[in-house]
Amino acid sequence: MRPLNPMPAAELPLYEQLAGEVAALVEKGTFRPGDRVPSIRALSRQFQVSLNTVKEAYALLEDRRLIEARPQSGYYVCARLPETPEEPVVDPPAINPTEVSISRIYRMVMHDLLDPALVQLGIAFPNPDLLPIDKLNRMLATETRRFRLSSIGYEIPPGCERLRKQIAQRMLVTGCALRPDQIIITSGCVEAVVLSLRALCRPGDTVAIQSPVYFNFLQMIEDLGLKTLEIPTSPLTGMSLDALEYALDNHRGEVKACLVLTNFNNPCGGSMSDTDKRRLVALLEHHGIPLIEDDIYGDLSFSDRRPTVAKAFDRGGNVLLCSSFSKTLAPGYRVGWIAPGRFQEEIERGKMLTNIATATPPQLAIAEFLANGGYDHHLRSIRRVYARKVAQMADAIGRQFPEGTRVTHPKGGFVLWLEMPEKVDSIQLFDLAHRHGISIAPGPLFSATGKYRNFVRLNAGFYSEKMEATIATLGRLARELESGKNS
Amino acid sequence: MRPLNPMPAAELPLYEQLAGEVAALVEKGTFRPGDRVPSIRALSRQFQVSLNTVKEAYALLEDRRLIEARPQSGYYVCARLPETPEEPVVDPPAINPTEVSISRIYRMVMHDLLDPALVQLGIAFPNPDLLPIDKLNRMLATETRRFRLSSIGYEIPPGCERLRKQIAQRMLVTGCALRPDQIIITSGCVEAVVLSLRALCRPGDTVAIQSPVYFNFLQMIEDLGLKTLEIPTSPLTGMSLDALEYALDNHRGEVKACLVLTNFNNPCGGSMSDTDKRRLVALLEHHGIPLIEDDIYGDLSFSDRRPTVAKAFDRGGNVLLCSSFSKTLAPGYRVGWIAPGRFQEEIERGKMLTNIATATPPQLAIAEFLANGGYDHHLRSIRRVYARKVAQMADAIGRQFPEGTRVTHPKGGFVLWLEMPEKVDSIQLFDLAHRHGISIAPGPLFSATGKYRNFVRLNAGFYSEKMEATIATLGRLARELESGKNS
Repeated sequence: MRPLNPMPAAELPLYEQLAGEVAALVEKGTFRPGDRVPSIRALSRQFQVSLNTVKEAYALLEDRRLIEARPQSGYYVCARLPETPEEPVVDPPAINPTEVSISRIYRMVMHDLLDPALVQLGIAFPNPDLLPIDKLNRMLATETRRFRLSSIGYEIPPGCERLRKQIAQRMLVTGCALRPDQIIITSGCVEAVVLSLRALCRPGDTVAIQSPVYFNFLQMIEDLGLKTLEIPTSPLTGMSLDALEYALDNHRGEVKACLVLTNFNNPCGGSMSDTDKRRLVALLEHHGIPLIEDDIYGDLSFSDRRPTVAKAFDRGGNVLLCSSFSKTLAPGYRVGWIAPGRFQEEIERGKMLTNIATATPPQLAIAEFLANGGYDHHLRSIRRVYARKVAQMADAIGRQFPEGTRVTHPKGGFVLWLEMPEKVDSIQLFDLAHRHGISIAPGPLFSATGKYRNFVRLNAGFYSEKMEATIATLGRLARELESGKNS
Repeated sequence: MRPLNPMPAAELPLYEQLAGEVAALVEKGTFRPGDRVPSIRALSRQFQVSLNTVKEAYALLEDRRLIEARPQSGYYVCARLPETPEEPVVDPPAINPTEVSISRIYRMVMHDLLDPALVQLGIAFPNPDLLPIDKLNRMLATETRRFRLSSIGYEIPPGCERLRKQIAQRMLVTGCALRPDQIIITSGCVEAVVLSLRALCRPGDTVAIQSPVYFNFLQMIEDLGLKTLEIPTSPLTGMSLDALEYALDNHRGEVKACLVLTNFNNPCGGSMSDTDKRRLVALLEHHGIPLIEDDIYGDLSFSDRRPTVAKAFDRGGNVLLCSSFSKTLAPGYRVGWIAPGRFQEEIERGKMLTNIATATPPQLAIAEFLANGGYDHHLRSIRRVYARKVAQMADAIGRQFPEGTRVTHPKGGFVLWLEMPEKVDSIQLFDLAHRHGISIAPGPLFSATGKYRNFVRLNAGFYSEKMEATIATLGRLARELESGKNS
């Protein structure tokens, strides 16, 4: 018989031990008011105690008003009376800027996503009003019915063929001639980049990246035991190739991969020219260093012309092109992809050993959307909206933030990168904004070197006129920090 | 203007270059017979060439009968005439047993999954006839409609609360009192185990595992740069704790994690007793080594009583319990989970940096199935079927395989582990069976030490009377290998 309590301490009668176990689960919230608890028979069989012991335990819990019997139905957890009072609202502790841990800030920024009461300007999440939710969910339903048997099976690497074919066809407009079998489906773009880093680097190796850079990449690189070489990046034209060339010459043999967001990069919004893309590919090919290209914002160009990708200039298979549908269709579907060039086998193996496959139903739905859902039409309409929101928020920032604040004017995507006057510490601003119900992404998250202290990234994708007040609050807090009032 | 061909070689007229690019995409299968190619306007805008250039290119392709214009509709890839003949059927190359690469066999076994013509006995995939496909897909449709907005958003770690609550409630029958916030949703059980290994170990560290063991674990451990310490495991009672204790005493400080399948383990089918589970937890706690417990087959017990888990005896949070719904509900939904004890923060961070979140719609569907889909009823019925299939296949093996063949009698799950006479090389058997359209998993896959040369794992979950012929073929091939006829 399995003892109810493996610890020797408990010498209570069996039914009291059992009652204690069930009560503890209610206490902890595993069973909540209104939930049905296991039947007497089920509990008796499971714990190998007599029916009577369970009955006595349940009687005890009824006496304590913890559970109640409902005729023909079983035992249920009672509504709690009196209600426990709500926890007092505790201000988050003030952050001492000299002791800031970036990974603590990182956790807070990511955790803010779970708080519906916050105004979400910190995460580069697309505006759900601009996602084709109903159409996608309908396609999820019809496609799983249509491909009944395969909907439940593994789509082992490279993944759903229909989806890969749609992606290959679409890539023509980026200048890439890809076959469907040169594409591997991943669970989002982040997974594609991690698989690339893991395939190319061993702990201790160095990765050349733009600076500033999307903060998840820094956390990821740290997590893999890799080092970063941060290359200066222009808000307009992307990574400085002169700086990259100089750095590679001076770190010969150390750099095992170069990770670049070529189009509308996060956080600056800049894009590399075709000339620079070609030079980047040639330079890395020359040094024998693979290029991990992240093109996740490429489809969100504000102009008619979708930019090319560096992969279009790749003839040796040295470029691993990563992207996803998280910014344009459905973040929660977790469908991304990679065209890994000559690293096909390594990435397929890595995907298999990470989680075997990406969930099948979302792949079927996205494939159908690309084939028959009017993806181009959808893109044209959301691009216009994002262009307007980005311009309007930049405008509001100009009116509300301290004099001397500079803001990017991206030509695609939906994030803005702000440089505030030097005296404004963005981590203090993060802390103050949080207390005012606003989540932002402070500059130091975007570098491993403690730079960008007076920078901040804001998501403009949710901007509307009523958000002017939020920007006004942020601007006021920034001005107070500048004048030393709040530090 | 973006040149069509970045290589200097091409000095053809622009329209010929363009035609060549489109022809190459048809050649490679990106556009297939019947697919529409991009419109003249789209191609002109994209490549920044005149409309006339595109028209000339398309005229050229029409002349070559590669594409055809359809009135009011655009240009389409022509059906190919004459059809290219099918590739001749080439026998897979014979494998020389002295040069076998395990990872090559691994790739072949996994790749076999993609071949619908094979009889799939090699992969431990559940029988789709025993999965509630229609009900789950219906719930996928209703739940994404019901939770419209969140269906499209990220379920960042720990994941969908409703699902975690259902899992916590169900874990009571395994002896675990878990709160929903002590559970993290993952994309399958493999991901839960990888996240655990990555959180606990650094390259060069050692992991103690059972032997033989589920082959993906070995590949995974190799991939992470870790070493294995293989602990002898009884087909009946699981890992030998005497051996483990001895090994830990002799490898003090090297072993950073112990990975154990406690119930109906893959491939042997044995389960640890409660006494052993408790001893295992205490032993590892004493050595300061975390236990990664894989319970993926626990719900598939052939008896009424669902076995406990080692986690039930864990008081210090030293056990990371991993499982999923891939064996009982829907492999392709990719929904698993982990109760990581004191490693909650590390696993949440690792999950975030692997792929941010598990896809939302499958989480919603599984939560609904657990709450209102009759999961217990479903389990009771498939357990009975698997018990029968396992017994019937073991029976057929007894009749058809060479004398001296031994086979496990698992009390749960659906795989059988066979020991054949010593002269039967399972890699040769794999090769021969493959030529006869049967996929099996040869013994050497299940160890990093080259052991189990005369063992094989078979999936009994698909067994039916008409499969007697398949078993007869395998048995005949094994007998031929034994007599030296085929080696």
